[in-house]
Amino acid sequence: MSEHNESRTQVTVTLPDGENRSFPRGATGYDIALSIGKKLAHDALAITVDGKVQDLHAPVPEDARIEIVTFEHPLGREIFWHSASHIMAQAIEELFPGTKFGAGPAVEQGFYYDISSEHRFTESDLESIEKRMLDIGRRGIDIRREELSRESAVDYFSSTRKDPYKVEILEDTLKDTPKVSIYHQDGFADLCSGPHLPNTSKLKAVKLTNISASFWRGDSSRETMQRIYGIAFPAEKQLRQHLARIEEAKKRDHRKLGAELELFMLSQEVGSGLPIWLPKGAVVRNELESFLREEQRKRGYVPVYTPHIGNIELYKRSGHYPYYSDSQFPPLTYIDDLGREEQYLLKPMNCPHHHLIYSSKLRSYRDLPIRLTEFGTVYRHEQSGELNGLIRARGFTQDDSHIYCRQDQLVDEICNAIDLTKFVFATLGFDDIQIRLSLHDPENREKYGGTKEAWEQAEKDVREAADRMHIDYVIGVGEASFYGPKIDFIVRDALGRKWQLGTVQVDYVMPERFDLSYIGSDGQPHRPVIIHRAPFGSMERFIGVLIEHTAGNFPLWLAPVQVAVLPIVEDVHDYATGIHRMLLDAGIRSELDTRSEKIGRKIREAEIKKIPCMVVLGQNEQAAGEVSLRRHRKGDQGTMQTGELMEKLLTEIRERT
Amino acid sequence: MSEHNESRTQVTVTLPDGENRSFPRGATGYDIALSIGKKLAHDALAITVDGKVQDLHAPVPEDARIEIVTFEHPLGREIFWHSASHIMAQAIEELFPGTKFGAGPAVEQGFYYDISSEHRFTESDLESIEKRMLDIGRRGIDIRREELSRESAVDYFSSTRKDPYKVEILEDTLKDTPKVSIYHQDGFADLCSGPHLPNTSKLKAVKLTNISASFWRGDSSRETMQRIYGIAFPAEKQLRQHLARIEEAKKRDHRKLGAELELFMLSQEVGSGLPIWLPKGAVVRNELESFLREEQRKRGYVPVYTPHIGNIELYKRSGHYPYYSDSQFPPLTYIDDLGREEQYLLKPMNCPHHHLIYSSKLRSYRDLPIRLTEFGTVYRHEQSGELNGLIRARGFTQDDSHIYCRQDQLVDEICNAIDLTKFVFATLGFDDIQIRLSLHDPENREKYGGTKEAWEQAEKDVREAADRMHIDYVIGVGEASFYGPKIDFIVRDALGRKWQLGTVQVDYVMPERFDLSYIGSDGQPHRPVIIHRAPFGSMERFIGVLIEHTAGNFPLWLAPVQVAVLPIVEDVHDYATGIHRMLLDAGIRSELDTRSEKIGRKIREAEIKKIPCMVVLGQNEQAAGEVSLRRHRKGDQGTMQTGELMEKLLTEIRERT
Repeated sequence: MSEHNESRTQVTVTLPDGENRSFPRGATGYDIALSIGKKLAHDALAITVDGKVQDLHAPVPEDARIEIVTFEHPLGREIFWHSASHIMAQAIEELFPGTKFGAGPAVEQGFYYDISSEHRFTESDLESIEKRMLDIGRRGIDIRREELSRESAVDYFSSTRKDPYKVEILEDTLKDTPKVSIYHQDGFADLCSGPHLPNTSKLKAVKLTNISASFWRGDSSRETMQRIYGIAFPAEKQLRQHLARIEEAKKRDHRKLGAELELFMLSQEVGSGLPIWLPKGAVVRNELESFLREEQRKRGYVPVYTPHIGNIELYKRSGHYPYYSDSQFPPLTYIDDLGREEQYLLKPMNCPHHHLIYSSKLRSYRDLPIRLTEFGTVYRHEQSGELNGLIRARGFTQDDSHIYCRQDQLVDEICNAIDLTKFVFATLGFDDIQIRLSLHDPENREKYGGTKEAWEQAEKDVREAADRMHIDYVIGVGEASFYGPKIDFIVRDALGRKWQLGTVQVDYVMPERFDLSYIGSDGQPHRPVIIHRAPFGSMERFIGVLIEHTAGNFPLWLAPVQVAVLPIVEDVHDYATGIHRMLLDAGIRSELDTRSEKIGRKIREAEIKKIPCMVVLGQNEQAAGEVSLRRHRKGDQGTMQTGELMEKLLTEIRERT
Repeated sequence: MSEHNESRTQVTVTLPDGENRSFPRGATGYDIALSIGKKLAHDALAITVDGKVQDLHAPVPEDARIEIVTFEHPLGREIFWHSASHIMAQAIEELFPGTKFGAGPAVEQGFYYDISSEHRFTESDLESIEKRMLDIGRRGIDIRREELSRESAVDYFSSTRKDPYKVEILEDTLKDTPKVSIYHQDGFADLCSGPHLPNTSKLKAVKLTNISASFWRGDSSRETMQRIYGIAFPAEKQLRQHLARIEEAKKRDHRKLGAELELFMLSQEVGSGLPIWLPKGAVVRNELESFLREEQRKRGYVPVYTPHIGNIELYKRSGHYPYYSDSQFPPLTYIDDLGREEQYLLKPMNCPHHHLIYSSKLRSYRDLPIRLTEFGTVYRHEQSGELNGLIRARGFTQDDSHIYCRQDQLVDEICNAIDLTKFVFATLGFDDIQIRLSLHDPENREKYGGTKEAWEQAEKDVREAADRMHIDYVIGVGEASFYGPKIDFIVRDALGRKWQLGTVQVDYVMPERFDLSYIGSDGQPHRPVIIHRAPFGSMERFIGVLIEHTAGNFPLWLAPVQVAVLPIVEDVHDYATGIHRMLLDAGIRSELDTRSEKIGRKIREAEIKKIPCMVVLGQNEQAAGEVSLRRHRKGDQGTMQTGELMEKLLTEIRERT
């Protein structure tokens, strides 16, 4: 308190590395950045003051921890894209005077603005707007914040800007806010809480990507608006990289590859969001299931099979119905021959069925842990706009297990589940994994089941397990599920995109609801703890992500067709057939191409089908009893004896490399 | 016509072996039987005349093929049990005068009579009735048929017998039948079309098994009746064997063994008729699925996975809805976020989904046959009274495949399907198999889809395949499904009971309905033929039957626990643990019993659990680095080196012997 008396004319800021620096009162983020370096001052977009972001040119009000926000900072893109939407609005206003502006936020990848105009915007308009935006950038206009009373702002947007949408927001959404802010760029101004870039010159590259229709305030009874999407960067190179990534992502789109490689299909005749696995996709899924099944067998899991429907009472007991009824298919009403009416739900999760198996017999402390596992298909109501091939479907198969254990076994069992999940990801070539411990929010206890003590113990155990497994993690407070803390595995794919896949969850609530117990060594009944875990998460989602990660270039052990046997001339067809047969007999998925096509074409087609190995056979190979091996995307691997080929392939398949 | 003129006073009968014999006109079945032998005449119950059954003492009306019906004849039991129900009615009438009689037919195992009485029949009444029935047998009463006009019969049952139920049948069901028949036994008489035993003396053994409630004419708005069930035989020994078989069947009841061996459970909380596979049952199912999956892979089948629900339009197209709606769960009505209402059915069969896969791309004659295979779970509405554990369930998993082939491939593909089915049954130890060719009834063409020519071709092909595979079969005319002829595999289990399991069906109708085609070598589109086939039929039903067939003594490769490792003393626990570990590492399902129990008890409990192999370890075995092997129900197999044990077990598992 008093120790800072002498610094009334100074503010002291603490930099992220812990260093303290003092500045004259009134110093801005820009001043601080400049004191660190010219490059940083150039790249600076904004500043955080005790975690709260503000404009770069606003004074730092008091002593605080600060961070300079550049484009690379977690908050940088959002600020940049938010300002870009203002710059787009200014450009549109200059080109199409009289246009009215609704809302213009940053989104995950860029920004949009909803605008109202008699003019129907076209692709070529977008090009002109892009040019004007770059021009506004070149003009180097300062972006200036003005704070004023709500009443003055209403007056300004009514009389000066003549913008009815902003007036509506001021009179409706902000009606209880006495003081608001406006951001000015030359003649253009927008009602906005900011923060924004200091100057339009930061914007060096922009691409407007799409026009679509929207409703004012998302309300279909209000007027239609035109929504223009775009993305912008502080350097041309970044835009080029971004567009290349999008192009690559389009090529890797699992829906596109899924059709080209005949992995799966969707059919309106069956229903939206209900993937059908074609033979080649079914092989991949089968291999993944066998791999996990075998790995789980070694780790003491036992299989079960449960029906895909269940009496609705079961889900009332678990608490999933009616609370989650929005995310479920509606029940079907079944009247049996005795006139009894029952309602059945398509199983939205496998847990209740497994809990019934646990409670079907008396369990002793010696029987635990019990690890039930099932590839259980569940059905969820996903919004049609959210559906995305295999990655977001209405029917999907979880690699679901429930581990019932004693409290003293919990840490070990969490460790085992983490270990299995890491093993699965490593085998599948996902080596960039982020782990998130989702804990409960102690200030929102009513959101969660279970006692305070149980939560404390569970979170202690989860952290202990994570530490013992030497995993780096981030913590998400308030992100636990209602029944317990969880560990989520987020993988980064080859394009750098993040996907939440595997999960390990601790549950103290369901054992209560299903009155699960075991007889302890003291002869008394005790509650087990449950771990819910799924390394893949869902077979559909995992394989969808795997297709995009690998661009459909599956490792040999997963490839739907592992080898294409390609005879060069008809004379060697018998030799080729023999080798094809030998591969099949060894359990290797081989295809024989005896069409009378040139070898170049046969190889090209096998490459397009992304078949990992091509065995090319001509008269030389036949004479020497050898084969030429060619690998997909790697080219010629030379000739070898058939025995060596078999050994090579079988080893690679067995070792899943 | 005229060549038999001279035989007007004679009838000539053709015996089953082809021999012709002439008898004076008026000769009866009894006369013919007596001419063949005294024993046959004694055993004779009735006679068939040109396939139509009649009383033994009725004259053979004209020249005909005849068969003497004994108890062993396919029709013998029905006649015997039908007469036994009359004898029971007579006994009841003698003991409880005033009892009224409803319907009293033979059933698959015995007979029942629905009776109306003030008296509540008890177990001890059943004993008195049994005694009286045997007494009626000893009295040797002739059973006499009387034919009379319906009016006279009404008069007889109104005035003489005072039996309102028979009067109702005469005035309702038989109102358009001018002439009816009554069977008399002393004072007892029953309205009945017969035929019946010649004399009550044939009945030598009887057991009344149950009393239950029923409604007159099965109509719940009519009066309640008491239904008494029983079974009877021409010899005491047959009854004893029958009761012993029932006793054995009870012991083998898959629901009882399923619970004792922890194979599966049923839970009202999930729903009636929806089996849940417990870990040990899931292992058995898993092994069977892996076995078939591997065998199918070798035979060129390709896997698919399809959702468990489908838009109702799909089943309208296939013709399954609404025609089969009685046997389906009701649709669920789904309204998506766009307000679109759709109805989904729980998949009652997998076929339509597979047909969509076939038609998802252009197929060439070179691509055929295409053999899609899936362990597809389907849901059917079975009457609650029909539910029977795994054998009759509302949700079950078919080992379903659809083979799409050209007409010229059909016979080969049927042969392949028959071969696979026979291989599966042989591997599972079902060696008594009956095959039934179910053909269409040409006189009822309207019951079937497809053209006359297609049916003729299909049935020719089915017969050709059956002949080529050297299988004996019986033909069931009129038993084909609406889409084509089929081959059903009926296995006889260890208790001699018959179960319809596998099936191979030819289908010319669905290719039309789903407009399936392939481009022929002529460049023109052609229709493929479909074969539906399922060697197991359903995993649930097959395993249910397998449990009863083996009495839960699964072969080693299927046993949920394959080896119990049983240390005799604590000193050898480490040795035992090592051997247990070695077994697990080799993929053998082993359990280690380190409880401080006597070895006798450990062995007894392993025997009760029907674990095929027990490895007994004492200090001698440890010292010699050996093991003692004991086989379930076979006892001690001597000592051997652990290497020999592993080799022995792995070979037996691999060869599935």
